[in-house]
Amino acid sequence: MHEGRQHARIRSIGIHMPSTRVSNYEKAAKVGFEREFLENKLGVVARSVMEPGETTSDLAVRAFNDLAERTEVPRDEIQLLVVVTQHPDFKVPHTAAIVHNRLELAKHCMTFDVSQGCAGYTHAVTIVTGVMDAANLNHGVLITSDPYSDKVADDDRDVSLLFGDAATATYFSRSGPGYRLIDSNFGTLPDSYRCLMFRDRLEMDGAAVFKHAVQEAPPSMKELLARNQLNVDDINLFLLHQGSKYLVEYVSRKMRVPPERAPFEASHYGNTVSSSIPLMLQKHIDDAELERIVLSGFGVGFTWGNNLLQLSKG
Amino acid sequence: MHEGRQHARIRSIGIHMPSTRVSNYEKAAKVGFEREFLENKLGVVARSVMEPGETTSDLAVRAFNDLAERTEVPRDEIQLLVVVTQHPDFKVPHTAAIVHNRLELAKHCMTFDVSQGCAGYTHAVTIVTGVMDAANLNHGVLITSDPYSDKVADDDRDVSLLFGDAATATYFSRSGPGYRLIDSNFGTLPDSYRCLMFRDRLEMDGAAVFKHAVQEAPPSMKELLARNQLNVDDINLFLLHQGSKYLVEYVSRKMRVPPERAPFEASHYGNTVSSSIPLMLQKHIDDAELERIVLSGFGVGFTWGNNLLQLSKG
Repeated sequence: MHEGRQHARIRSIGIHMPSTRVSNYEKAAKVGFEREFLENKLGVVARSVMEPGETTSDLAVRAFNDLAERTEVPRDEIQLLVVVTQHPDFKVPHTAAIVHNRLELAKHCMTFDVSQGCAGYTHAVTIVTGVMDAANLNHGVLITSDPYSDKVADDDRDVSLLFGDAATATYFSRSGPGYRLIDSNFGTLPDSYRCLMFRDRLEMDGAAVFKHAVQEAPPSMKELLARNQLNVDDINLFLLHQGSKYLVEYVSRKMRVPPERAPFEASHYGNTVSSSIPLMLQKHIDDAELERIVLSGFGVGFTWGNNLLQLSKG
Repeated sequence: MHEGRQHARIRSIGIHMPSTRVSNYEKAAKVGFEREFLENKLGVVARSVMEPGETTSDLAVRAFNDLAERTEVPRDEIQLLVVVTQHPDFKVPHTAAIVHNRLELAKHCMTFDVSQGCAGYTHAVTIVTGVMDAANLNHGVLITSDPYSDKVADDDRDVSLLFGDAATATYFSRSGPGYRLIDSNFGTLPDSYRCLMFRDRLEMDGAAVFKHAVQEAPPSMKELLARNQLNVDDINLFLLHQGSKYLVEYVSRKMRVPPERAPFEASHYGNTVSSSIPLMLQKHIDDAELERIVLSGFGVGFTWGNNLLQLSKG
């Protein structure tokens, strides 16, 4: 509401990737998947698995600690802490309040959780940017933490080979160099919420998820580019939700984006839900200065969200 | 991000208040509370109770239907649907996706849930305002639905007399007359998240909640007024979270706000958590044009949030 002030930008990202990896080869054979399918379609040959008994807030705190090691985060000035999760430690309170306490953040900090699945990061980048503007906040942290390893049935063909545990912590501020949200768009497909559900365990209709994703992600990204007078070649990097290797390849082919600009990087940790995009973003923005990046999340709901980010030098 | 465009404003509110009311007199006697305590301290003589088997999304849909009866909501143009709840129908997907489906909203609609308790509406008013600006959305709906009647132990002295079921649906647009968010502030008290928890049932340390509320709500509201060069007399109405009659009276006395400008209205339905403030707001903005309103939520976390709203005539 304070026009003329600088908008929030992504300054730095911390990650927590569990050191424990479980190979998928044996399990794939057991549930009847060919090696070729595992390696080239699913694309996940090993999954990252948290320690027994770890919670959503445990992973969140570890991701924040990694962030604080990489970047000087003004801990006492953090005015916004958002946790994106569909697996809070408890129903009440929100996990952000627990993480706030464990990180010993200051009192003048807004805390809430966002429940959104695989498109959670793209939704939350827009939420954090909007809230920091609307409430005139200078420093915010966005955490993603959706561990699934303890929530899928071990013998479930549809999901037991797919998901990995991880968490990320993204630091936003309104000054300094970073990636600023230029525009974003979102959608929810009517009559599709049953494709991913958690009642007592995770249930997925993989064919429906795939169909919805290839149908909705490419045109929505194209719409976002078109309304910003950009085309695919103006974007240095597309970071697509890592649903499966085949899905990432299919979506990028449909977008006519060459594979090196829409990578699949989850082969040794799996689909980490809301953490899949920031895990990649951390690596790429640490490696190089990129002018424009598109993030595209899709999944649970069935929903999708796209962010157009642009480098801002200060 | 599109400076110069109009900011979102609250256009209209729909509510769902269950017709079933359960008197508290008999139960109060059973758990050993005096009639005087029930009527003048707790202040809740009857609780609203949803139908057996009703869900969070059921109440949400009913609130939206009431909104659509009161106001012409352009259903096909709704681009944002937020559900504030700590009791989603399922962990996955978010309840907003289910409500989106049940209301047959259009595809180009962003959906997510916000987990935040008694201060949830004040948080979400800022979130919705910020997201509508950041993503350039014209029409949004914010639903609150936190039914507790099936989640508290019937013999629990601390909570079984307090909570009522209800839901609300607030319509925001970027044009037309309504109440615009001018400023807001928020906080999370360190080392306090245990005062309200839901593990297998709701547990509340009522004394701690009261202490935190009377300590944090008045100074934070005063800070919000001061930084906007306003004093208590410039505000037509303070709508305080209806934690209990005594709490509302105590906070407003500390603020030197006369009782008629900080009403307690929950005596015949109870503490409806995130719905407590919008239930009152609906009534008051339908009754009269008020220049400025302050909303103040506090509870779960322990957190608080204050919104300064101002009438905008078009």
